[in-house]
Amino acid sequence: MDKEMFEKGLAIRREVLGADYVDNAIRTADDFSRPLQELVTQYCWGEVWGRPGLDRKTRSIINLAMITALNRPHEVKMHVKGALNNGLTKDDIKEVFLQVAIYCGVPAAVDSFRIAREVFKELGI
Amino acid sequence: MDKEMFEKGLAIRREVLGADYVDNAIRTADDFSRPLQELVTQYCWGEVWGRPGLDRKTRSIINLAMITALNRPHEVKMHVKGALNNGLTKDDIKEVFLQVAIYCGVPAAVDSFRIAREVFKELGI
Amino acid sequence: MDKEMFEKGLAIRREVLGADYVDNAIRTADDFSRPLQELVTQYCWGEVWGRPGLDRKTRSIINLAMITALNRPHEVKMHVKGALNNGLTKDDIKEVFLQVAIYCGVPAAVDSFRIAREVFKELGI
Amino acid sequence: MDKEMFEKGLAIRREVLGADYVDNAIRTADDFSRPLQELVTQYCWGEVWGRPGLDRKTRSIINLAMITALNRPHEVKMHVKGALNNGLTKDDIKEVFLQVAIYCGVPAAVDSFRIAREVFKELGI
Amino acid sequence: MDKEMFEKGLAIRREVLGADYVDNAIRTADDFSRPLQELVTQYCWGEVWGRPGLDRKTRSIINLAMITALNRPHEVKMHVKGALNNGLTKDDIKEVFLQVAIYCGVPAAVDSFRIAREVFKELGI
Amino acid sequence: MDKEMFEKGLAIRREVLGADYVDNAIRTADDFSRPLQELVTQYCWGEVWGRPGLDRKTRSIINLAMITALNRPHEVKMHVKGALNNGLTKDDIKEVFLQVAIYCGVPAAVDSFRIAREVFKELGI
Repeated sequence: MDKEMFEKGLAIRREVLGADYVDNAIRTADDFSRPLQELVTQYCWGEVWGRPGLDRKTRSIINLAMITALNRPHEVKMHVKGALNNGLTKDDIKEVFLQVAIYCGVPAAVDSFRIAREVFKELGI
Repeated sequence: MDKEMFEKGLAIRREVLGADYVDNAIRTADDFSRPLQELVTQYCWGEVWGRPGLDRKTRSIINLAMITALNRPHEVKMHVKGALNNGLTKDDIKEVFLQVAIYCGVPAAVDSFRIAREVFKELGI
Repeated sequence: MDKEMFEKGLAIRREVLGADYVDNAIRTADDFSRPLQELVTQYCWGEVWGRPGLDRKTRSIINLAMITALNRPHEVKMHVKGALNNGLTKDDIKEVFLQVAIYCGVPAAVDSFRIAREVFKELGI
Repeated sequence: MDKEMFEKGLAIRREVLGADYVDNAIRTADDFSRPLQELVTQYCWGEVWGRPGLDRKTRSIINLAMITALNRPHEVKMHVKGALNNGLTKDDIKEVFLQVAIYCGVPAAVDSFRIAREVFKELGI
Repeated sequence: MDKEMFEKGLAIRREVLGADYVDNAIRTADDFSRPLQELVTQYCWGEVWGRPGLDRKTRSIINLAMITALNRPHEVKMHVKGALNNGLTKDDIKEVFLQVAIYCGVPAAVDSFRIAREVFKELGI
Repeated sequence: MDKEMFEKGLAIRREVLGADYVDNAIRTADDFSRPLQELVTQYCWGEVWGRPGLDRKTRSIINLAMITALNRPHEVKMHVKGALNNGLTKDDIKEVFLQVAIYCGVPAAVDSFRIAREVFKELGI
């Protein structure tokens, strides 16, 4: 593990997904899951989210569309929260998922609209 | 067909994908493919691309990531060109596809990097 | 929104998916989800389901297979109900999902068989 | 191998995909590919296509939609030809792929429309 | 149905997935789902799992990776259990899912790590 | 970039995919594609392929199945070659792709069998 890149990634991950959530994920990792936590934190959050080329709003927009296309509802939920943390509005998220409807098809958009509404309800917004 | 929305979509589509390409697609449509041309122009380009909520650069970024996830190389190629028309730089495109590598996996990113390089070569940039 | 096409789509959607379900979806839509409801009703149910070229039984058969391939369980469930409303028998649905097993693979078919059985149980058939 | 089911499947496969094509596929199989040829002929064409529950037109319609969703262009091409052999018209195929546009997204439909047009051109229809 | 191949498949399926689970699946099958049970047992477990060319550990490894890629969580869960029955260790499973992270993307790996941990917890290991 | 991990990954990548191929990929990388080359070499080949938990034959088997499921033909081709370099026989590859036929569906297996045969022909084996 590249300790410096891990720490850089950890800081970004905490800012985007929330410190409580991330600290809990790291703390409850066991021998089975720790290598994934390290890989994801270093590689996903340090190497890529840590690049200066795109701002965090744009990276959130990419993830909302891309993870919907990948059909991973747990991650869609987490990245809707991350998108709000990164400053996207509900209207921004709506626009992304409407574009998804055309390119990924209606069922993909219906699923992500439902997940987003559950997040908004949970957060009371 | 909603003629007004079709015309609105046609104008946007020509600006993003290039007038020659789009005019040719419309002109060479036959009875088999015309309904698709109309549906795509009206809904995809009129109803969605025509919405004011996201600028065209952002819509191109979404498409580069999302269509890579969907694994449709012909459309990736077309939307790399569209992204350049919408003002994205090669560096912007690189950032999108690096983020793709993490979330969609390395083979998806390798394919889109190769396609983008072919487009750049073709356009001499 | 093309009001006429929306109304045409709404009527078909209510017949296929059930009036209660659809009216509830429309009524509970908020500013976030209303544009999706309108897009889906107009574009999916008006423009495509409203075309005379295929009967509704055939359109249901297509959806059962295609949405299984797309791996969207909420929509599979809804379209199993829609298929029954459109006059497909349990045997017809079985045949579609057996063909799915060969082309989409066994896990896809296992998932759709399970979902269909849940629907049948819920409906007491 | 269940010889009887293989023979049943072989007969159906030859009728749907064309005797020349299928005989060539069987004849040119080597030790590497022969088990696949046998598996496909017996299970796909014997066990499933051989079932009486759906007619061949309907099975072709399912395949056109499902294989587009699966994004396998070689097989889409082969099953467009098979669909014509089974009595589907160009208009029927158009309807299937328009429905695909809504549920699988526009890029999937664009790809299958292009492949179908290539087949029609090749066959001079 | 090829009775002999079905019996061969049934024996392997019971050894890999557990006799209780499989006997229950067979016993509770009704007219709707029985043809799938027969097809899967004969074709998947008899024809393919019954082939001598790869040992069961290797077949489990393939399934863990492939079914994660296919994004079918119910089947991932079942095949994590099957993998343990076939002698894979938690460390082996971890290695497979780390390789998944790179090729299928981080969200796919996160989902399969979570499912595997649920199985381990359920089994008290 | 973690230089040490990059070098470790580069050595493994050259052994698996062939030194000529890899050296060419590195040498012809430009500012656009170099970050991907570095990311892939360090993370995919260093961090994951470099782990001791699975031998290279097993990692090749995983990739053949997983990349077929992901539907990335260029990468399937490259990893068929890599699999041969890692000591898999044509019979091993056949077994993997037969298992693919069941779980990913027949079209996926047909595509990978065709690609593998092209590789064998190209290599004269």
